[in-house]
Amino acid sequence: MLKEIKLFITDIDGVWTDGGMYYDQSGNEWKKFNTSDSAGVLFLRLLDIPTAIITGEDTEIVRRRALKLGIEDLHMGVKNKVAVAEALCSKFQISLEEIAYIGDDINDILLLRRVGLSAAPANAPIYVKNEVDWQIPVAGGDGAFRAFVEQYLSQQGILEQALNLYLEGRKKFDQ
Amino acid sequence: MLKEIKLFITDIDGVWTDGGMYYDQSGNEWKKFNTSDSAGVLFLRLLDIPTAIITGEDTEIVRRRALKLGIEDLHMGVKNKVAVAEALCSKFQISLEEIAYIGDDINDILLLRRVGLSAAPANAPIYVKNEVDWQIPVAGGDGAFRAFVEQYLSQQGILEQALNLYLEGRKKFDQ
Amino acid sequence: MLKEIKLFITDIDGVWTDGGMYYDQSGNEWKKFNTSDSAGVLFLRLLDIPTAIITGEDTEIVRRRALKLGIEDLHMGVKNKVAVAEALCSKFQISLEEIAYIGDDINDILLLRRVGLSAAPANAPIYVKNEVDWQIPVAGGDGAFRAFVEQYLSQQGILEQALNLYLEGRKKFDQ
Amino acid sequence: MLKEIKLFITDIDGVWTDGGMYYDQSGNEWKKFNTSDSAGVLFLRLLDIPTAIITGEDTEIVRRRALKLGIEDLHMGVKNKVAVAEALCSKFQISLEEIAYIGDDINDILLLRRVGLSAAPANAPIYVKNEVDWQIPVAGGDGAFRAFVEQYLSQQGILEQALNLYLEGRKKFDQ
Repeated sequence: MLKEIKLFITDIDGVWTDGGMYYDQSGNEWKKFNTSDSAGVLFLRLLDIPTAIITGEDTEIVRRRALKLGIEDLHMGVKNKVAVAEALCSKFQISLEEIAYIGDDINDILLLRRVGLSAAPANAPIYVKNEVDWQIPVAGGDGAFRAFVEQYLSQQGILEQALNLYLEGRKKFDQ
Repeated sequence: MLKEIKLFITDIDGVWTDGGMYYDQSGNEWKKFNTSDSAGVLFLRLLDIPTAIITGEDTEIVRRRALKLGIEDLHMGVKNKVAVAEALCSKFQISLEEIAYIGDDINDILLLRRVGLSAAPANAPIYVKNEVDWQIPVAGGDGAFRAFVEQYLSQQGILEQALNLYLEGRKKFDQ
Repeated sequence: MLKEIKLFITDIDGVWTDGGMYYDQSGNEWKKFNTSDSAGVLFLRLLDIPTAIITGEDTEIVRRRALKLGIEDLHMGVKNKVAVAEALCSKFQISLEEIAYIGDDINDILLLRRVGLSAAPANAPIYVKNEVDWQIPVAGGDGAFRAFVEQYLSQQGILEQALNLYLEGRKKFDQ
Repeated sequence: MLKEIKLFITDIDGVWTDGGMYYDQSGNEWKKFNTSDSAGVLFLRLLDIPTAIITGEDTEIVRRRALKLGIEDLHMGVKNKVAVAEALCSKFQISLEEIAYIGDDINDILLLRRVGLSAAPANAPIYVKNEVDWQIPVAGGDGAFRAFVEQYLSQQGILEQALNLYLEGRKKFDQ
């Protein structure tokens, strides 16, 4: 039976993006996010499950994205993702077994091995995919994080509930 | 028989774009439109059918795109899309049944359920596609809005008329 | 038998790009070109066939691209592409029959009907493709212009000659 | 039997990118890299094999990417790639036979013909692919360089070793 997850953690590059890093001539940098992933964060929030970000990169780009989506647990420039996940366990008073994590590359492997539910997007190398519980059939940047969340909610039988919670919230505006 | 549509309304992110939101380090933001969609707006205008935009986001990016395409009814930062559509009904003295709407995500569902002709692009989640009259076989950002317009014009038997109106306008330059 | 072409003319949006128009918050704009197309211009130049651009848009973006590729005949903001092509005929002392043109959308149809060799990229609407001599199996932005040039050179039996001219030029550096 | 490679050299446009060149209105320019390729450089470094860049373009964009990845041998604006490769042979006291090179277009052919192990990404023209030892089944910008490196390490039987070296380095942080 599927464990109950109390925290979703996500990598960014290669998961929320297709791994693309846009460089210009002046030292500025871009990432391309997909608005589709925001529904994953929203569904979890409606069910009182927080989302955290742990990424090896350290950019204003990701800070802005986290801010817009209301993600408070943002950890950037991380070398040791396991240690940060353990700190989050302390904060939320949960175990690694109650964490779901999605990552796509070699710096995610050690954490993927430790959490209760691990996933990799379709673009991950085969030796990363071989480490995870779920190989998500959606590539990074195409909504892989949302697909991971929806697969979990679906297997728990609560995806429709999350969607209805959302629609009922919206419907209130009609009255 | 297909209803006669008197107003096309469109979502932006995920319909006019692939859902991509480009962030840089400085707080600026980008969207990628497709010039192909402009022909959809143009065909409708040649047939005296206006196009309106209703989007949850609020950016200068979309304002510029609407300005370039001559779209006057631009509604941004919208939480309740049904209420805005109803206001457009009052303005144009039409009913929701005479509106065609294309949207791709959960914040479009309530409006998709109310209009006379509803559509979703190929990239929409299955539970959004299940809500619409037409599942457009083109993804957002690849010309999904134009494909929706052309499918409507084609079923009304007036796509060729719209194209000829356009070419005759252009031909005048040759004389 | 295939006509001898003395001038290649090309559209830009949807041919040299995938139709994408990137807008930011400040009024700036981007297009994404593909370095692959530059070899098309280069092969033609080695064979003394000039390349000209005729586009409906008017941006510094295209001016820079033309400058980098050494394309002198750049015509932007054009409403009547046939008239500009006729002016190029006068300049080069050739007929429309000696021109090859590639375009992807409704504002290209009238010129596509008039030139000696017409082509459309894979992303063009079916009613544009139906107007052209060659449907190029490469999409705009993926090297459609180069593919058009190479298909012409190949059918004339001179693609290998163009490639060898290029490599011999490069080889001189080795001596 | 596969030669032992002592230096990997790589082209940039069309290999580390999909050939895309983003131009804006102001004279700035962008390239889109893929973070995936960084693991290729990292694996080689763990095995004491340096990576060098030789590219015909000359931009700050590539300089920044090389700096971030710790690639010291960066040669830009190069007309004669063979001559630069020969200079690298002198520097590293190796022969062209001990060099692996990946390039995708006509300005790479002469060097591809000379090195010990040559490769082209999936997006290269057929007449470039016909020149190389290995046709990499990954396109430029999707991790073609990393795929080239991994195919080499795999055939040498040392890919797992490189991955374990990486993971053991990371594991030290856990203690």
